[in-house]
Amino acid sequence: NLSQSSFESIITALETEMSAQTSLPVGAVFGLGRAGRIHFGNIASLRLARVKYVIDADPKAASVAAAAILGGQTDELPKFLLPEEEDQAMADPEVTFCVICSPTMTHETALRKCINSGKQMFCEKPIATSLESMKEVHKLAENKGLLLHCSFNRRYDPSFSLLRDRIPNTCGEVHTIRTCSRDNPYPSIEYLRTSGGIFHDCGVHDLDMACWLAGEWPSTVFATAARHNPQLKDFNDHDTAVIVVKFPSGAIGIIELDRRSTYGYDQRIEVHGAQGMIASNNVCDRAVTSSTAAGVNSANIQYSFPQRYAEGYVNSMRSFLSRISGSDENAMIVTPIESLNVSTLADACEKSLETGAPVKFQPINTL
Amino acid sequence: NLSQSSFESIITALETEMSAQTSLPVGAVFGLGRAGRIHFGNIASLRLARVKYVIDADPKAASVAAAAILGGQTDELPKFLLPEEEDQAMADPEVTFCVICSPTMTHETALRKCINSGKQMFCEKPIATSLESMKEVHKLAENKGLLLHCSFNRRYDPSFSLLRDRIPNTCGEVHTIRTCSRDNPYPSIEYLRTSGGIFHDCGVHDLDMACWLAGEWPSTVFATAARHNPQLKDFNDHDTAVIVVKFPSGAIGIIELDRRSTYGYDQRIEVHGAQGMIASNNVCDRAVTSSTAAGVNSANIQYSFPQRYAEGYVNSMRSFLSRISGSDENAMIVTPIESLNVSTLADACEKSLETGAPVKFQPINTL
Amino acid sequence: NLSQSSFESIITALETEMSAQTSLPVGAVFGLGRAGRIHFGNIASLRLARVKYVIDADPKAASVAAAAILGGQTDELPKFLLPEEEDQAMADPEVTFCVICSPTMTHETALRKCINSGKQMFCEKPIATSLESMKEVHKLAENKGLLLHCSFNRRYDPSFSLLRDRIPNTCGEVHTIRTCSRDNPYPSIEYLRTSGGIFHDCGVHDLDMACWLAGEWPSTVFATAARHNPQLKDFNDHDTAVIVVKFPSGAIGIIELDRRSTYGYDQRIEVHGAQGMIASNNVCDRAVTSSTAAGVNSANIQYSFPQRYAEGYVNSMRSFLSRISGSDENAMIVTPIESLNVSTLADACEKSLETGAPVKFQPINTL
Amino acid sequence: NLSQSSFESIITALETEMSAQTSLPVGAVFGLGRAGRIHFGNIASLRLARVKYVIDADPKAASVAAAAILGGQTDELPKFLLPEEEDQAMADPEVTFCVICSPTMTHETALRKCINSGKQMFCEKPIATSLESMKEVHKLAENKGLLLHCSFNRRYDPSFSLLRDRIPNTCGEVHTIRTCSRDNPYPSIEYLRTSGGIFHDCGVHDLDMACWLAGEWPSTVFATAARHNPQLKDFNDHDTAVIVVKFPSGAIGIIELDRRSTYGYDQRIEVHGAQGMIASNNVCDRAVTSSTAAGVNSANIQYSFPQRYAEGYVNSMRSFLSRISGSDENAMIVTPIESLNVSTLADACEKSLETGAPVKFQPINTL
Repeated sequence: NLSQSSFESIITALETEMSAQTSLPVGAVFGLGRAGRIHFGNIASLRLARVKYVIDADPKAASVAAAAILGGQTDELPKFLLPEEEDQAMADPEVTFCVICSPTMTHETALRKCINSGKQMFCEKPIATSLESMKEVHKLAENKGLLLHCSFNRRYDPSFSLLRDRIPNTCGEVHTIRTCSRDNPYPSIEYLRTSGGIFHDCGVHDLDMACWLAGEWPSTVFATAARHNPQLKDFNDHDTAVIVVKFPSGAIGIIELDRRSTYGYDQRIEVHGAQGMIASNNVCDRAVTSSTAAGVNSANIQYSFPQRYAEGYVNSMRSFLSRISGSDENAMIVTPIESLNVSTLADACEKSLETGAPVKFQPINTL
Repeated sequence: NLSQSSFESIITALETEMSAQTSLPVGAVFGLGRAGRIHFGNIASLRLARVKYVIDADPKAASVAAAAILGGQTDELPKFLLPEEEDQAMADPEVTFCVICSPTMTHETALRKCINSGKQMFCEKPIATSLESMKEVHKLAENKGLLLHCSFNRRYDPSFSLLRDRIPNTCGEVHTIRTCSRDNPYPSIEYLRTSGGIFHDCGVHDLDMACWLAGEWPSTVFATAARHNPQLKDFNDHDTAVIVVKFPSGAIGIIELDRRSTYGYDQRIEVHGAQGMIASNNVCDRAVTSSTAAGVNSANIQYSFPQRYAEGYVNSMRSFLSRISGSDENAMIVTPIESLNVSTLADACEKSLETGAPVKFQPINTL
Repeated sequence: NLSQSSFESIITALETEMSAQTSLPVGAVFGLGRAGRIHFGNIASLRLARVKYVIDADPKAASVAAAAILGGQTDELPKFLLPEEEDQAMADPEVTFCVICSPTMTHETALRKCINSGKQMFCEKPIATSLESMKEVHKLAENKGLLLHCSFNRRYDPSFSLLRDRIPNTCGEVHTIRTCSRDNPYPSIEYLRTSGGIFHDCGVHDLDMACWLAGEWPSTVFATAARHNPQLKDFNDHDTAVIVVKFPSGAIGIIELDRRSTYGYDQRIEVHGAQGMIASNNVCDRAVTSSTAAGVNSANIQYSFPQRYAEGYVNSMRSFLSRISGSDENAMIVTPIESLNVSTLADACEKSLETGAPVKFQPINTL
Repeated sequence: NLSQSSFESIITALETEMSAQTSLPVGAVFGLGRAGRIHFGNIASLRLARVKYVIDADPKAASVAAAAILGGQTDELPKFLLPEEEDQAMADPEVTFCVICSPTMTHETALRKCINSGKQMFCEKPIATSLESMKEVHKLAENKGLLLHCSFNRRYDPSFSLLRDRIPNTCGEVHTIRTCSRDNPYPSIEYLRTSGGIFHDCGVHDLDMACWLAGEWPSTVFATAARHNPQLKDFNDHDTAVIVVKFPSGAIGIIELDRRSTYGYDQRIEVHGAQGMIASNNVCDRAVTSSTAAGVNSANIQYSFPQRYAEGYVNSMRSFLSRISGSDENAMIVTPIESLNVSTLADACEKSLETGAPVKFQPINTL
C-alpha cells in the first residue's frame, strides 16, 4: 500500500536512474540489404542502442525497409546517407559504433574509416578480401583498443551452444564432429560470382563451428567438391563440397556443404564420442502432422538463414552491444585470431581441392 | 544513381506520409501482472500502438517491469497510475483503447468505465463473473459500437490455425476432436481459490478450440473430474478433468485437462475423420538430442503458456489493433456470441460433474 | 579338443534328453481363418507343440493355407477335418489342447466338447455370446482343472507391457489412462453384422488394457458413439465410440474407438500422472523419410492387427503352451474373472449409450 | 459343401504335389558361431531347405545351440561333425549347398572343397584373405557353374532397399551419399586382432552400400582414421575412420565408421540430391517414451547387428535358396565382380590412410 507521494518518488528515482543508464549507444549501419535489415531490426527490438545513420546506395529502398521494420514509430527513423556521404556519420561524435553489412568489397575501407574515427565495429564476414589485409585491419583496431566483432552468428545459436555445453558429459572423448549445411534458396548467379566461393562463403561457418566444438585447431584439411550447376564453371566455383579435418586430439571433423536444398535450410550438427552422441537437428516451426492413406506428412524445416538463425543474430548483436556499453565484459566475441584462422582454413580447403591432396594446417596464435 | 536532391525529396515525402499514417492508436493497460506484461511487451514490439498509461496497484513492480521490457528506451515509458487514479486515463481523449488484464473481479467495472468513455476493449477472459453480467456488458459495448475482444489466444496460434485450415482436406468428415491441456507450473493455491474452477479457468480454452475446429456448437456435454490435491476440497475444485461433447454432425469432442504436468506445458490437438488425421504436437525449443547407454534424451517441451502461446498473444493483439486502427477490418476477433456460448459450456460442465449425467446444450445466436 | 567318442556320447545324451523332454504337446486348431492362421503359424515357429488336426469347413482353403505357412515341410502337415468330423480330434488321447478360432457362435459348443474331453483351451474372444454362458463354461473348465485362456493379445505386446512396468516410476499416482484404437482396414458389412458391436468387438481390448494398466476395476462407465456409415443402422451398431471410465483411485480412463483409419492401424496408449507421462506410440516398420519441396514424408504406421500385434500373438501362445506343458507355471494368463468383468464392462458401455447416462459398475471377484 | 471323398482327393493331390515340389535342398553349415546360428535359424524358419550337417570344432556348444534354435523338434536336428570330419558332408550327394560361416582363415579351404564337390556356396565375407585368392576361388566356382554368394546382408535390408528404390524420384541427380556405421558392442581385442582391420571388417559393408546406391564405382578414395583404444596399436588398427569417395558422376560418398557406440547399433544412410533428400534412420523396437521433469526419454536403438539386420539375413538366405532351388532365378545375388571391387576399395582405404593421400580406383569388370 504505497502512498501516492512515495510512489512518485520511486518513479522519479527510477526515471533518473534509467536516463542515466540510458545514454544508449548511438550507431551507424552500413548497408541495409539482407543482413543489414536483420541487424537494424534487432537493434530496434533489443532497445539497447539507437541507430542514427543508415548508409546505403539505394536510400529509397533502405528507408522503406527501415520504416517497415520500425512500424509506425517515425521518431526512431535514422538519417539516410549515400555511401559518398558516410563521413558525416564518421564525423559525428555521438556515433560510437558501426555495423558493417555493405557489399563484401567495401568492408575493408569502411573498417579503416571506423578505426580512424574511433568507432567500435560489428562486421559481417569477411572483414577484408585477403588474409594480409584482414590481419592489418585487426592489428589497427587492436592498437586503437577498438572491438572488431566479425560475426559468426552460429556460435550464438542457442541449440548449438547447448550442444557444445553438453559435449563433455554426453560424448566424453570426441571421435567425430559432423556438420551439414545445405543452403536454401539457391543463390543467384550474380551473388555466387562475387561470393568468394563455397569454402569462404559457406564453409567458414562450418569450419568455425567444428573448431569451436572441438576446442582446437585442425592439423590437416582435405576437401573435395562437385559442380552440379555448369554456370559455376565461369568462376571456378562448386555447389557441393565435403571437408575432412583431422584434429591433434584424434577427433575428425566432417563437413558437408551444399548450395541447394529443396526442402529448406538444412543445418545439422552431430558430435560422437566414447560415451555417446549429441545432435542438433533441424527445427520445424509448426509441429503439425497429417496422416492419410498417402503416408505421414509434416511441414518442412525452416526456410532459410533469417528464420533459422534469428536468435543467433539477436544474441550476437546483444553480445556486441553489451561489450561496447560495458554492461557485460564477458559477452562472447569472435576473436581476431579465431576469425583469421578460420579464413586460413578456407584457403586450405581451396588448396586441397586444387591439389587433390590433404593440406597441413598451422594456426596462428598472435596477430 | 539518385541525386542528393531527389533523394531528399523522397525521404521528405516518406516521412510526411508515415507521420500522417502514424498517429498511432494510444492506449491504457489495466494490470501489469503475468498477462499484462505479455500484452505490454507485444504492443511495444508490434509498434502499431503506444501505451500512455499503465494502471496497477503496485506501481513500483509495474514500472520496473515496464522498464525491463522496454530496455533503455525511457522516452517510451508510460505514466503509471494507481487503480484509484484510473479515471485520468478514462478522461484522456487521446486514449482510444484499453487492455484489461487486472484481476478477474475487476474486469466488469473496468469494462463499464471503458464503454462509458468510448474506449475500444481488449479483455482477458472472463469479462465478468456471471453470464448475465457478461451479456449486459457485451450489449452495452455493441450499442456504443465498441469492440470488446475477449482474447481466446489459442485461436491465434499459428499451428492450431494451420491445423484448422487443413481439416477439410486431410480429415474429411470429422469423427473426433481431441484436445489435451496440461498446465505447468502447478498454480498456487491462492490463484486456484479465485480462478473460477478448472472448467472456467482452463476448460474454456479447450471448449472454444473444439467448437472452433468443429465449426458448430455441441448438443450435449458430459464432464467428470478428480481431485489429486486435497487442498482443492476447500473450494470444491478439481485438478484433473475430462469433458466429452457431442456435436450435431456426429463429431465427438474429447477434452483432457490437468493442472499438473511435470514435463512442461502440454498442449496437443488431434482431429480424426473419414479421410485421415491431423495433429498438432508439442513444440520443443531446442532440437538437441543426447544418445547414451542410458537411452535417448531430448529436451522437454516448452515450459508454460508465455512460451507456448507467444505468437498467439502477438497475433491476437495485432488483430485487435488492426481492427481498431481500421487497417484490417477482417482481422479475426472472438465474437460476443462465441465468448458467451463458451462460458455457458463451462457452466454445463460444472452441472454435469455435479449431477453425474450429461447436460443438453442450447447455444445462443443473438445477444 | 573333444575326442570323437566323447563327442558322440554327448550327442547321444543330448538327443535322449531332448526326446524325453519333447513329447511335444499335441493339439487341434478349430478354424483356419484370419486368427487361426496366425495361431497355426505361431505354433509352428515356436516349435513348442505340434498341431495334429485342423478342423475347418473349407478344408481346401485350410490345407492350402497350412501348406503355405509350413513351406516345404510336408511331414508337418496336420490332418484336416470337417466340423462334423471334429469328434475324431476330441477322441484322440494324444491331443491335449485345442485352439478355438472358428466363428464366434461356435465357440461355446467347441469349448464344452473340449471340457468333456479334457483338453486345455486357448480360445479367441468371446468364449460365448452371453454372460451367463461364459460363466458356466468357465466354471465347467475350472471344475475339471482345465485351462481356458481367452486371449486378450494386447497384454502380450512388449511395448504395452514395458509401458505398464514403467508406470509406477514414471507416472506415480495415475491421473488419466488414454487408449486410442482405430481399425484398419474397415471391416466388411458381413463381418460387422455378426461382430457383436463396437463395444464387444473392439472396446473389450481397450477396456481390458485400461483396467490392466490401472490395476483396478472402474466404478462408473460412460459411453457415447456415432455412426458415420449408414449401413450400420440395420443392426444398430456404430463406427466411432468414446468411453470414459472412472476408477476408485480417482484415475480416469478415456478410450477412443474407430472402425476407420485410412493411415494404418492406430494403436496408442498414454498414461499421465503426478510425476510424468508414459506413452506407447505407433510403430513404423521402415524408418525411411523423404524431404522435398513438398514437405517431409514418412511411411505409414503398420497396416493392421497381424502386423501390429505379431509379437503379442506369439507371446500369448507361448504363455499358454508353457502353462500346459508345465515349463512355466507363472506364465501370464487372462483369468476367467478378468475376462468376465471386461465383457460386463462392454455391456455397461452399451447400456450407457442406450440410456445416455453413466452406468455404475460392480466387478465380480469369484466365478 | 465338399463331400468327404472329394475332400480326400484334394488333400491327396495336394500332398503329392507338395512332396514332389519339396525334395527340399539339403545343406551343410560350416561353423555355428554368431553368424552360423543366425543362418541356421533362418534356414529352419524359412522351411525352404534342410540342414543335414553342422561342422563345428565345438560340437557340444553347436548341438546345444542348434537344439535351442529348433525348440523341441528333435527330428530336425542335423548331424554334428568335427572339422576333420567335414569330408563326410562333402561326399554326401544329397548335400547340394554349403553355408560357410567358420572362422575367416578357413573360408578359402572350405570353398575349394565345396567347389570340388560341386556344392553351391553361401559364404560370409571375406571369401579369402588375399585379392588374388578371392579371384581364383570365384573363377573356379564360375567354371563349375556354381553359385558363390558372398553375403553383403545390408543390401537385403528392406529399409535400405526401399531407400534405394526411391532415390530417382526423391533425390534426382545425386550430390552426396552418407553412411554412418557405429558398432555395438565394442568387439573383443581377440576378435579385432584377426578381423582384417576396420576397413575390411566394417568398411566393406558401407563401401558396398555407397556404390550400390550410387550405381557406379568411385574414381578416388580418401581415408583417415583415429585410434582411441591404444591396444589396437599392436596390430596397427583404428577404431574410428572416415572415408570419402568421389564418383565419376560427381556424387560424393561420405562414410563414417566407429567401433564404439554406447547407445546401440547406429546404422544410418542419407542420400541428398538436386530434388531432395531421403534418409533411413535407426530403428527403435519399442515406441515407448517417458516425459518427466528430467526430459523426454525414449528407448535406445537396436542393440547390435543380429537385431538390426534380422530381416536382411533372412532375405539374403531366401535369395540364395531361391536361386539354387530354381524357384526365383532373378533373386538378387552379390556378384563376384562386386565382391572383388568392394574388397579392392577397402585395400585402397588402407593405402590412403598409410600415404595420407587420396588413391585412384579402377574397378574390374571381368573375373
